[in-house]
Amino acid sequence: MDRKERYELLFNNINQYNSGEEGITRIAYSNEEQTCTHAFMRLCMAEDLDIRMDACGNVIARRKGKVESLPPVVMGSHLDTVYQGGKYDGVVGITAALEVIRRLNEDGIETDHPIEIISFACEESARFGVSTVGSKAMVGQFDKNRYRDLMDKDGITMEKAFALCALDFNSVEQASRADERFKVFMEIHIEQGPVLINNEKKIGIVTGIAAPVRLHVKVKGKASHSGTTPMNMRKDALLGASEISLALEKAAKSEEEFGTVATIGVLNVYNGAMNVVPGDVEFKIDIRSTSLNSRKRVLDQLNETIEIVKKNRQLEIESIEISSEEPVLLSTEINDVLKNICDEKNIPNQTMQSGAGHDAMNMAKLCPVGLIFIPSVDGLSHHPNEYTPLDDILVGIDILEAAILHYAIIH
Amino acid sequence: MDRKERYELLFNNINQYNSGEEGITRIAYSNEEQTCTHAFMRLCMAEDLDIRMDACGNVIARRKGKVESLPPVVMGSHLDTVYQGGKYDGVVGITAALEVIRRLNEDGIETDHPIEIISFACEESARFGVSTVGSKAMVGQFDKNRYRDLMDKDGITMEKAFALCALDFNSVEQASRADERFKVFMEIHIEQGPVLINNEKKIGIVTGIAAPVRLHVKVKGKASHSGTTPMNMRKDALLGASEISLALEKAAKSEEEFGTVATIGVLNVYNGAMNVVPGDVEFKIDIRSTSLNSRKRVLDQLNETIEIVKKNRQLEIESIEISSEEPVLLSTEINDVLKNICDEKNIPNQTMQSGAGHDAMNMAKLCPVGLIFIPSVDGLSHHPNEYTPLDDILVGIDILEAAILHYAIIH
Repeated sequence: MDRKERYELLFNNINQYNSGEEGITRIAYSNEEQTCTHAFMRLCMAEDLDIRMDACGNVIARRKGKVESLPPVVMGSHLDTVYQGGKYDGVVGITAALEVIRRLNEDGIETDHPIEIISFACEESARFGVSTVGSKAMVGQFDKNRYRDLMDKDGITMEKAFALCALDFNSVEQASRADERFKVFMEIHIEQGPVLINNEKKIGIVTGIAAPVRLHVKVKGKASHSGTTPMNMRKDALLGASEISLALEKAAKSEEEFGTVATIGVLNVYNGAMNVVPGDVEFKIDIRSTSLNSRKRVLDQLNETIEIVKKNRQLEIESIEISSEEPVLLSTEINDVLKNICDEKNIPNQTMQSGAGHDAMNMAKLCPVGLIFIPSVDGLSHHPNEYTPLDDILVGIDILEAAILHYAIIH
Repeated sequence: MDRKERYELLFNNINQYNSGEEGITRIAYSNEEQTCTHAFMRLCMAEDLDIRMDACGNVIARRKGKVESLPPVVMGSHLDTVYQGGKYDGVVGITAALEVIRRLNEDGIETDHPIEIISFACEESARFGVSTVGSKAMVGQFDKNRYRDLMDKDGITMEKAFALCALDFNSVEQASRADERFKVFMEIHIEQGPVLINNEKKIGIVTGIAAPVRLHVKVKGKASHSGTTPMNMRKDALLGASEISLALEKAAKSEEEFGTVATIGVLNVYNGAMNVVPGDVEFKIDIRSTSLNSRKRVLDQLNETIEIVKKNRQLEIESIEISSEEPVLLSTEINDVLKNICDEKNIPNQTMQSGAGHDAMNMAKLCPVGLIFIPSVDGLSHHPNEYTPLDDILVGIDILEAAILHYAIIH
């Protein structure tokens, strides 16, 4: 079996764990995700790695270095998905890291620095509305009081979800490695956008990560009979939400030159019925930019619209900030290394920004970070049809392997 | 005991029959509804009425006229409720009718025409998704093949529900009185809307009953990552739905003079997540008017908007008609009589239309029909807190009594 076949087998193995019918659904802290995580741990054990799961559910798999006291060179990504997601997001990063380890073992390469793979818990916000939960815990920025009672769509709190995985929410601090030293952190990920495909590049070297501000908006109107309530006597919460959604789109479009985007991806009409004017609507907003100023202008326009809608439609509207993250600039030194490796191997590459958040952006608080993008066909992401050709993944693994060796061996 | 106390006792007596904890739950053909119906029959017997239950479960209680061959003057409403409904919907009509009979008996008034009270079975669609079942049977428009296997939420079919009440579903035709003559049919009902309260009127004289056209709209866009998909490359199904909802509101508002209303009461974002541009949204539309032309204009504007949104946002939008019913115009002659009675008694009144369906709309196929509304505090309907002050009900009973005497006695 050659490396390509070996990798493909690993990739398909991981993607067996799925609760959905279309695409891949492997939600954080769910049975499928936990089974998948444990299978990954067994695969790491088979490569002689030391494995442990920390208090937040992150898996740390460590390959000894010749000098164990040297700071580890770390690769990582995540195994959880959104609802009806694809096979590549997160999985490529984890399986690529394991393939790098397999190559080193196969080639009998010992490194000076220890090497770690980290499989981060709950990278996706799909379940609780908070993303990169595991890497937040690892860098000591897990906001326990704020997250404890966050509920998923079935009413299960994050604390309860931890308990169902035999994780003690109250001990989550133990996952922090903020006082440890790391040599570098590197992650390989699908681009999740159309840029590399459009530019015919195989590798994107990420210079910065745009960060989201996220809001939970609750609109209270008055439920009333759809047949007997005249149009001018209604307090229709859904129409209020509709107005806000269109104004938000307009605000984001006016910031196009900064790459700013805004999205309402979740909206619920409570106690909806065909003959009832909606009285209770909630939705969630995600606004992202690499420019904090641009993001703030969109937020300001949103808040102005909310005030207008409140007044004109006599609705109660409450807007709660769920999270607000800072854009992160990545290591220029690592990026130079990555560029040299690509150029030496004649791999078409370019620098770019990431519109999506990644665990890498939290790890940047602990050490220099590099983020490697590989092409997403059609720019599809978080979708059953997201796709990256196997050969493109293997190119990415070659680059990652070379970069890991660059940092793990003292020259 | 004065009439007010007597009526209050009757009203409270009927509302004892309840299977729910909050509000009143007295579902059609349930134990509670049947016990209530039989109690009502005994109350009618105590007033010397001839009573019978027909093949559909309708109760017909008849007071003899001096000339038994004259067509009866009929009052009616229903005793069933929705789940967690209120005390007034239907009950007011039935108890008011019985109170009218009690007054005639008390005052020793004989009428030329016989007078009937009809307690219609299964007016609410709550159990089987079909409303005004009893009055449909009475006018010979019970669709046996369509209704037989309709199931309630516990999997009990309508045929089985009949059987549990010792009613033979196969003989339901016998309930038809389509070949009989009726002088008039009159129903008193709570408004279920805020118009009378807002206008400080005590009586609404209903000119017509609006009928809904109902649509199921499916919007398909493209689910994509909220961080990596530029605003101008999105196919956001929720924004499409938002645009349609606001255009629908605008269309209905432009038809205000016809009392036309349009509502999106149900909307689902499938596989919604904070970081996913919505690709799959469905919603349901209810448009009502007493004017078919006005309703059609709203529909036309809706369809125009759908075409524009489809094109501008590159969405697939499918709109399926679920049902379409005909509005019913009520008797202008009866309405003139009602108006004169109100004006003579100095009762503030107005004409209006009914946005909700009633048994009266079926009875209009057999004879001239009048529908009298009394105020609903806060416009609340199908809700545990629906409320009409006792004094307002008594005003309604006065008007009903006078109207019944107008038609039952030959002048």
